[in-house]
Amino acid sequence: MLGSGNQACSPTHAAPCNTIGFLQKNNSLGEEGRLAGSLSERQKNLFSCVNSDRDARFCRTETDFSNMFARDLLPAKNGEEATMQFLLELVDILTNYVRKSFDRSTKVLDFHHPHQLLEGMEGFNLELSDQPESLEQILVDCRDTLKYGVRTGHPRFFNQLSTGLDIIGLAGEWLTSTANTNMFTYEIAPVFVLMEQLTLKKMREIIGWPSGEGDGIFSPGGAISNMYSVMIARYKYFPEVKTKGMSAAPRLVLFTSEHSHYSIKKAGAALGFGSENVVLLSTDERGRVIPADLEAKILDVKQKGYHPLFVNATAGSTVYGAFDPINEIADICEKYNMWLHVDGAWGGGLLMSRKHRHKFSGVERANSVTWNPHKMMGVPLQCSAILVREKGILAGCNSMCAGYLFQPDKQYDVSYDTGDKAIQCGRHVDIFKFWLMWKAKTPMGNREGYEMVFDGVPQHTNVCFWYIPPSLRGMEHNSKEYREKLHKVAPNIKAMMMESGTTMVGYQPQGQKVNFFRMVISNPAALQSDIDFLIDEIERLGRDL
Amino acid sequence: MLGSGNQACSPTHAAPCNTIGFLQKNNSLGEEGRLAGSLSERQKNLFSCVNSDRDARFCRTETDFSNMFARDLLPAKNGEEATMQFLLELVDILTNYVRKSFDRSTKVLDFHHPHQLLEGMEGFNLELSDQPESLEQILVDCRDTLKYGVRTGHPRFFNQLSTGLDIIGLAGEWLTSTANTNMFTYEIAPVFVLMEQLTLKKMREIIGWPSGEGDGIFSPGGAISNMYSVMIARYKYFPEVKTKGMSAAPRLVLFTSEHSHYSIKKAGAALGFGSENVVLLSTDERGRVIPADLEAKILDVKQKGYHPLFVNATAGSTVYGAFDPINEIADICEKYNMWLHVDGAWGGGLLMSRKHRHKFSGVERANSVTWNPHKMMGVPLQCSAILVREKGILAGCNSMCAGYLFQPDKQYDVSYDTGDKAIQCGRHVDIFKFWLMWKAKTPMGNREGYEMVFDGVPQHTNVCFWYIPPSLRGMEHNSKEYREKLHKVAPNIKAMMMESGTTMVGYQPQGQKVNFFRMVISNPAALQSDIDFLIDEIERLGRDL
Repeated sequence: MLGSGNQACSPTHAAPCNTIGFLQKNNSLGEEGRLAGSLSERQKNLFSCVNSDRDARFCRTETDFSNMFARDLLPAKNGEEATMQFLLELVDILTNYVRKSFDRSTKVLDFHHPHQLLEGMEGFNLELSDQPESLEQILVDCRDTLKYGVRTGHPRFFNQLSTGLDIIGLAGEWLTSTANTNMFTYEIAPVFVLMEQLTLKKMREIIGWPSGEGDGIFSPGGAISNMYSVMIARYKYFPEVKTKGMSAAPRLVLFTSEHSHYSIKKAGAALGFGSENVVLLSTDERGRVIPADLEAKILDVKQKGYHPLFVNATAGSTVYGAFDPINEIADICEKYNMWLHVDGAWGGGLLMSRKHRHKFSGVERANSVTWNPHKMMGVPLQCSAILVREKGILAGCNSMCAGYLFQPDKQYDVSYDTGDKAIQCGRHVDIFKFWLMWKAKTPMGNREGYEMVFDGVPQHTNVCFWYIPPSLRGMEHNSKEYREKLHKVAPNIKAMMMESGTTMVGYQPQGQKVNFFRMVISNPAALQSDIDFLIDEIERLGRDL
Repeated sequence: MLGSGNQACSPTHAAPCNTIGFLQKNNSLGEEGRLAGSLSERQKNLFSCVNSDRDARFCRTETDFSNMFARDLLPAKNGEEATMQFLLELVDILTNYVRKSFDRSTKVLDFHHPHQLLEGMEGFNLELSDQPESLEQILVDCRDTLKYGVRTGHPRFFNQLSTGLDIIGLAGEWLTSTANTNMFTYEIAPVFVLMEQLTLKKMREIIGWPSGEGDGIFSPGGAISNMYSVMIARYKYFPEVKTKGMSAAPRLVLFTSEHSHYSIKKAGAALGFGSENVVLLSTDERGRVIPADLEAKILDVKQKGYHPLFVNATAGSTVYGAFDPINEIADICEKYNMWLHVDGAWGGGLLMSRKHRHKFSGVERANSVTWNPHKMMGVPLQCSAILVREKGILAGCNSMCAGYLFQPDKQYDVSYDTGDKAIQCGRHVDIFKFWLMWKAKTPMGNREGYEMVFDGVPQHTNVCFWYIPPSLRGMEHNSKEYREKLHKVAPNIKAMMMESGTTMVGYQPQGQKVNFFRMVISNPAALQSDIDFLIDEIERLGRDL
């Protein structure tokens, strides 16, 4: 009966039936030992609370965790107080870490070799024990885990493409892990599934696909997203490979830059193409694919009797940050009837920048796009999307119609069940933190209500633009009423701005063009934040015009 | 210049350079508006704190978030207080959710159809806005997200294989997202990489591979883990497929139960085998593979000139919870020189149960095993491991030697860099919560210090066992000294137990067998927790003998 697990699990028993595999230290005896005992100096007086009459629930108290165990936490009977105190103690550790992560006077890391950490550092023992540790020890382990780790949110951590610690994103992750659900069906993740759907649509709109139509899914990372693109390209041109295997197709060849991410080659190896059938393209000195080299290599492959299937254009290469010329590559893909994938894992964030998105020029011609918000956009790891122009192709490629998950006779619209278009079954909720950050901030350059006075990149630092208040949006631009109203917007905003005294910017008409703002950047003291401030002020002041 | 991003990012400027793609509401002007303003009733008096002299840092105060924005949070200058208050407010929401999740009087879910949620529920708007929302709204969104979700930790949620909300696991996830790092190299995840290595070794020991040697990695879920098994099986027998593709191999066939998880078939389709080359095996009425059917189908495939490559034995099928007979399947795999994979995604937790692990009998003969701690063991999603008997084969199969990540000239032992054996590049930290739960609890039935008096399942509810105190472990069992010492253990513990008065259990010798405990379960009031308690008491009392 030692270590038997769940046979005595009665409905009145609070022990978790589903944690077979772990025994918990039963500590119900030591009630008197829980709150007494010698408090460590660390725990004393961190704070004390005097509660108001209404609500005593969220008050961290002096608690001795040295005689408490996991078993004392919820769902244990009377485990609520211990659970709250334990979580608050943890939050204290985490918020301290957050605070220090932004402090330039702390080190980014305190390096130790593997053998040093394995030998144990001042009581930090990585070995798994055979006895349950006290909650005190668990909290010490948490502190030590952070202590010997790397502060990826530190202002001076530049080691990876994903850096930073976004507080809204962090909040999103804490909530996600508390909700602890699974993306495969609407029924157990209704809100998250809809958030994913809406966000993917928005991302497709930003890419430029008509009405944001198409397909997509969040995957565990850019490498998997890129793998999806290769899979669906193969399915598009040779759908019978799904059932019959690679022997149902000719020898298929993939093309990607010699500077591209290695995941394209990994996908080629994993999916049965073979890494030798991933042809590497030459680049110029800045790391951009030379289109003529692509075409020459396609012709070479065709001459050998193989089938050129897929081109990956990298938008933001891993090392140089190079952007392949998408339009020229798209021309070639169209000419040879090939799938065009854009790997924007790293560069994707620039799609939302009015200034930088020209680097993605032609992206709307791609068949699929990888875009990792967990890189440039600062969303906590993991958050990667594969976006696809053709609707339904992910499901076509991957569906296996498992009856236990995807019952067609559910009471709701089962088109919201996403699981069957994934190569995963269970799928972590990666959307919420991103959705929350999007809500808390504003998609850069995607703000509604601005129009440039002329197309193209300005020759100097003058930026000429109209602010369009909500009341004018959607009106016919050539109408007399619209032009008269818009003409008054800049002067009105400028007047309020002067009264506030917070910032100043010029405006004027030019020929047939009604009043517009002329932003000039030549003040050496101006930071990005100052420009943001101006834009915010214009919106604040002009919103109700 | 609208929405331009990062060009004016000076070192003295606190705005995050890496969050291109989001503008934040600049609210630095409204200093006076931050802490003033009308407090909502919800925010008032949740608690107030009187700080001790020492430390004011962790005190939630009355804060008006309605005029605060993401921009006011760290790394904003003076953003620390706002950040702490925001996170504490969030934690209040989350801990309330946790508390209610364990309360049987709350509903498991409050169901709404997709169109209802999309239309907006009492102010809960899923649409992404073009204006930044206040922190107040962000917190309301967090509350609503939980409100309209499904309480997977509710005691009456039985809908999926992964259920429950483990507090230690939750703490582990909160820490993981705060650390926000990546598993691909030791240099940015030293502690987590070592934890993964130690835990995988422990899992391999439990499987029964000599000294826990072998390979493995945590993946985003069981489907991906199973996909790994197919990939490495192919690599083992036809390594040239990695470079040359499937045409370098004969037609390869995979075998799996008709009751097995659909991920085997998905892997067959994705990896270029073709789903028709995944042969489904017949089962008995309890859902277990019939070995004779496997052998007949292997012979049939061979007769057609195809190559039988891989058998998946399911340990805990998705619907029936059936365990395929691993030993009999292993015999057949050995006979035909095939790869044996055991999909223990669901059943894996039983490997740690002395009572139930016989269902895995023969698992040590498998070439690879999938084991999802996020299912039976209650670890928060995602936590899945693929374990492999042969060391180095994962790297052999998947390595692409990316120079920018896996530099051979690092200052530390680069064999700890795990990235090149994955099909992923970035990889989420899934290990910490599991490691922490393992530390906080005890692997079931895997407690050191117990030996059964006779092998096999007892015929009745008598369980006869020795408790071996640490001082005796590792001694030669047949030595006179060992036997004499062990003979005294049970009486000593029993004596202390009687003095404590906490529990009682019998002991006796039998023939040549020195004193052992005889646990009898016939008390109808005894719950699992009572048995756990006895075991804990024995360990507590006997530890220093």
